[in-house]
Amino acid sequence: MYSLEFCNNRLYYLDQTQLPLKENWRECKSLKDGCCAIRELQVRGAPLIGVFAAYALCIGMKNFSLSQKIFLKQFHNAVNYLKSSRPTAVNLFWALERLEKVVIRYSANTVSQIKKAVVQEAKAIHKEDIQLCRRMGEYGVKLVKKGYNILTHCNTGFLATSGEGTALSVIFSAHKKYRDIHVYVDESRPLLQGARLTAWELVKKKVPYTVICDDMAAYLMQQGKVDVIFVGADRIAANGDTANKIGTYNLAVNAFYHKVLFYVVAPFSTFDLGISSGKDIPIEERSHDEVRIVFGKAQITPKNAHVYNPAFDVTPAKLITAIITDKGIIRPPYRKNIRKVIASN
Amino acid sequence: MYSLEFCNNRLYYLDQTQLPLKENWRECKSLKDGCCAIRELQVRGAPLIGVFAAYALCIGMKNFSLSQKIFLKQFHNAVNYLKSSRPTAVNLFWALERLEKVVIRYSANTVSQIKKAVVQEAKAIHKEDIQLCRRMGEYGVKLVKKGYNILTHCNTGFLATSGEGTALSVIFSAHKKYRDIHVYVDESRPLLQGARLTAWELVKKKVPYTVICDDMAAYLMQQGKVDVIFVGADRIAANGDTANKIGTYNLAVNAFYHKVLFYVVAPFSTFDLGISSGKDIPIEERSHDEVRIVFGKAQITPKNAHVYNPAFDVTPAKLITAIITDKGIIRPPYRKNIRKVIASN
Repeated sequence: MYSLEFCNNRLYYLDQTQLPLKENWRECKSLKDGCCAIRELQVRGAPLIGVFAAYALCIGMKNFSLSQKIFLKQFHNAVNYLKSSRPTAVNLFWALERLEKVVIRYSANTVSQIKKAVVQEAKAIHKEDIQLCRRMGEYGVKLVKKGYNILTHCNTGFLATSGEGTALSVIFSAHKKYRDIHVYVDESRPLLQGARLTAWELVKKKVPYTVICDDMAAYLMQQGKVDVIFVGADRIAANGDTANKIGTYNLAVNAFYHKVLFYVVAPFSTFDLGISSGKDIPIEERSHDEVRIVFGKAQITPKNAHVYNPAFDVTPAKLITAIITDKGIIRPPYRKNIRKVIASN
Repeated sequence: MYSLEFCNNRLYYLDQTQLPLKENWRECKSLKDGCCAIRELQVRGAPLIGVFAAYALCIGMKNFSLSQKIFLKQFHNAVNYLKSSRPTAVNLFWALERLEKVVIRYSANTVSQIKKAVVQEAKAIHKEDIQLCRRMGEYGVKLVKKGYNILTHCNTGFLATSGEGTALSVIFSAHKKYRDIHVYVDESRPLLQGARLTAWELVKKKVPYTVICDDMAAYLMQQGKVDVIFVGADRIAANGDTANKIGTYNLAVNAFYHKVLFYVVAPFSTFDLGISSGKDIPIEERSHDEVRIVFGKAQITPKNAHVYNPAFDVTPAKLITAIITDKGIIRPPYRKNIRKVIASN
């Protein structure tokens, strides 16, 4: 199962804003299409955004000049344009910078050859992402026991990556190994990626699940109904501080209080070792209507109500039991161990 | 401002399920109307339910037999019928039992005289509720300082009581005293009493506010943006354990972790000294569609998604800084001090 397809130099994607009600595939025909799709969350999930942006650049690049000087300028502008779509997830920047490096590496070649190399690199990023997901699943499943009740937040599966997912990859692996696991799904207000997307994925994969409102998770933990929490990440600083979907920090504090295991699952591309701690991670604030009008349909506040809508929060490393990556499980002390595992590769 | 009116032996109420979009007043013409209004949350809020149920009994009683034997049976059945509407809030039981006591006290009189006495008692409960709210506001305001950012959950104002409210009464008093306070309003999923009702009340009273999703409160506390939390209660056990709207416990844990003051505000009628601890408070579970279909309009999960929907949770006394009542502020040790303040009156 997948939510993005690059085929005959054309890019197709599942419009996630319509799920779970409609499975609507669209084509990204231009840089602008790509940028809008990311900004409007038709495509979301840190790793998927990286892969999608790389392909969107390939689509946009089709019409760029064959004069190398002009091409380089157009390419650079396109990268900056795509980078402007969302500020928090680092995979977006990572993927685009990887394509820029290819352009530099091939600068002695013709523009046609450069374009070909860029497309190859985008495909390589895509293929790698699928493998990274598999590896995270393999490492993470070691932390799950038979009959576990697993809680997760937001969406981290095949709608958030081009493979099986990050946190959900662990859950899918655990479901394959032990058929009797059960998943509590935080609905994940305001955009309800848990209720809309994760529940949809779990239905597709036939994994037993229960949707809860975000403010019910603590009550479940109080009752001893949660064995472990797996969440994804949008950016991880050098000290392990983790930016992820708003509500993750709330969960982490409750996990700490209730002594519930709290794991972050993310590929190496989510780490930003240039950032010392979570304080330096920019937090995107989004439209107030995302809170005021649920799923674009139900107005739940007085008109023009005052609203605060940060899209992410930062969970300090001290609340994280371990970080599961494609390169292995990283435990505290994070600054040292992240450098060892991530920087050395 | 008020949400209920008993006038010429007729009972009118504001249908809260339509707010904030429509201000729709209805008449309760029968016991069945009353029971449905409570069950469907057209009327909600622990103290308001008590007053409303008392009046609904007065309405139902109009058609009861003038034969005392039959009247007593009808009255008793009506009390049980109204009690069946919601299980968690104790004020409902308290108000109905108070009317039953009047019936017993007047059993030597004619049915007409009993009916008159019951209506007088219902009016007394109503009048007292207004005074209790005022007193809670007066005690609670002492805990607020100039410029405070106050966070609240669910709705506890003139839509939840027949007066100014419990937690919101404190906030309204604080706003009167210091014009510069500001209120963060938890939207309070699944039924959004914060986003729909509290925001509406704060607009009406011109109190500065900001609506947030429930999973954002922890992030606000992490940033030092919350000085104090005031919440209401549906039932308080003899040891101080407090049942309140689902999500309250989540907040209390976060308040504890972030060293934010956490106050419960409730009148004496919310205490259930017959219950030793929170473990014995029955927790109502409500329809799954309340989670699946937001505000009856936006389906946010796959069809027939598995859902868990407890309407309340229990916050252990150890997480509560103090309980503000109409009889004063109660601090730990709660078992001793609750008995002293509540039982002695």
